[in-house]
Amino acid sequence: MQFDLALAQQAIEEGIRNLDLEQEPANLYDPIRYFLSLGGKRLRPMLTMLSAAAYDVPLERALRPALAVEIFHNFTLVHDDIMDNAPLRRGLATVHEKWNRSIALLSGDLMLILAYEHLSGLGDKVLTKFNRCAIGVCQGQQLDMDFETMPYVSQSQYLHMIGLKTAVLLGFALELGADLGGADSTQSHLWQQTGYWAGVGFQLKDDLLDVYGEQARFGKQIGGDILSNKKTFLLIKALELANAEQLNTLRYWLSAVDFDPDEKINAVKTIYDQLGIAALTESLAESYFQKALDSLHQIHLTDKAPIFDFLHKLMQRTH
Amino acid sequence: MQFDLALAQQAIEEGIRNLDLEQEPANLYDPIRYFLSLGGKRLRPMLTMLSAAAYDVPLERALRPALAVEIFHNFTLVHDDIMDNAPLRRGLATVHEKWNRSIALLSGDLMLILAYEHLSGLGDKVLTKFNRCAIGVCQGQQLDMDFETMPYVSQSQYLHMIGLKTAVLLGFALELGADLGGADSTQSHLWQQTGYWAGVGFQLKDDLLDVYGEQARFGKQIGGDILSNKKTFLLIKALELANAEQLNTLRYWLSAVDFDPDEKINAVKTIYDQLGIAALTESLAESYFQKALDSLHQIHLTDKAPIFDFLHKLMQRTH
Repeated sequence: MQFDLALAQQAIEEGIRNLDLEQEPANLYDPIRYFLSLGGKRLRPMLTMLSAAAYDVPLERALRPALAVEIFHNFTLVHDDIMDNAPLRRGLATVHEKWNRSIALLSGDLMLILAYEHLSGLGDKVLTKFNRCAIGVCQGQQLDMDFETMPYVSQSQYLHMIGLKTAVLLGFALELGADLGGADSTQSHLWQQTGYWAGVGFQLKDDLLDVYGEQARFGKQIGGDILSNKKTFLLIKALELANAEQLNTLRYWLSAVDFDPDEKINAVKTIYDQLGIAALTESLAESYFQKALDSLHQIHLTDKAPIFDFLHKLMQRTH
Repeated sequence: MQFDLALAQQAIEEGIRNLDLEQEPANLYDPIRYFLSLGGKRLRPMLTMLSAAAYDVPLERALRPALAVEIFHNFTLVHDDIMDNAPLRRGLATVHEKWNRSIALLSGDLMLILAYEHLSGLGDKVLTKFNRCAIGVCQGQQLDMDFETMPYVSQSQYLHMIGLKTAVLLGFALELGADLGGADSTQSHLWQQTGYWAGVGFQLKDDLLDVYGEQARFGKQIGGDILSNKKTFLLIKALELANAEQLNTLRYWLSAVDFDPDEKINAVKTIYDQLGIAALTESLAESYFQKALDSLHQIHLTDKAPIFDFLHKLMQRTH
């Protein structure tokens, strides 16, 4: 097994640039081209390329399915941005901001269809798994929204939600590459589990970076989760560990309607710091990455260095 | 070939009622159950049942693909209702009115995925055709929105738009049933054409009913297209045929911002009446239905009575 990370990354970028999209109506296709060109880490298609390469699937054959995963992921982002009313994505205007909500809605729909189109010819087994994954992602997004108005969300409810919203797609991305290489169902499942647990760790890390990341590198607005009272692991843990005074302060900010954004972010962050929330989140994320590595260990492969390295880098990410 | 219309209709209703949907999250699945239960004519799945029956495909085998078509159609309605800000669908609250826009957006997304799920196992040829159809429907919806802000839309632009937005799905619905029955590509294409032309006629008729239909039976708000300055065939033709005075009146109402809805509907309708727009629309719709029947004639089948009768009824519809 040979894997050139830079080459795979380049193939994905070229694949995105050269997607066979029509020109008209421009208001439908321009937003898709725009959004896909915003970049991002291309983490998910890289996972597909990596597991496919583990079975010596040629890069060219893995590319189209990998693009399906990336297009699907971007479909979810375009629609999530509408639901979250988010002005920025990767430091640039979201589709509904740059065009309008109807255009964002419809070009998102088309991206979902294009994802299916990029999976065509791979057979029923892959499509069935993709359907399950896509359904899970929708369920996760709904739970995420439901949590906004729920007075209390438990840690396990939260982990279930991010499992659906984020992790099932990382699981599918790895499983897809293995399926392209003809992995049997046991191996295929281990790939899925590797991606799933890495995905849970990845999302915990993402929640952490939303509070503690660097604005310029993270792309999204730092403190956005705090401002919108998002029930992330950080907030759930803080509410659990807070003393009476800290709890009062947290509750004050959670119900405040008219406030200075920076003041709220700083106040909540101070409590997180007092309670050592960052370290707790790091450590939980780490434990999920460990589960991912445990699954990976069970896969019958001689050279796991490329996927190992990739997951390690994912764990260390600072943006 | 035997076809019991009532039995097929009943199978579809039961199929919709017994869809294998999960329960949680309720905010994701309740809207889907609600919207699908609103009824409607079930025209599209009936088309699939009809063409499948023409090849002696058992009802039970045609049902699941027919439901895919109906679920897809309802996905487009849920999302169109968001984009149009429509309060009513089939006389009842739309999903974004009854829940909210985010829930309507997400449950619509899931319906699109469920449509794909209901097509699983039918092979690549069918999925490729469905992808083409779904892409066309998105393009048609975008053109429809683009037309709202265009100063001038020609008759041929309009017919192209409804061809995509409405007719390709009716074409796919008929083609799908024929493909289930193993029709060759020539026959399959003729079914597609039959549905396509019937779909263009159907949409023209729909535009007519939006102005001249009966409120109680039509379900949507009568005059809605007039109020929103929708560039339907009726308006395009009226702008083309109007004399200077009528043109002034039309332009006045098209640019009016603060007005009594009934007054606007009546004023525009009066001009339509003066210009004989209803008869022109009827006659154009009729010519497309004729093209549909011409395609149907070329299909190699001994007994075309059921599909013939069905298309005839479609032509005569008053709601």
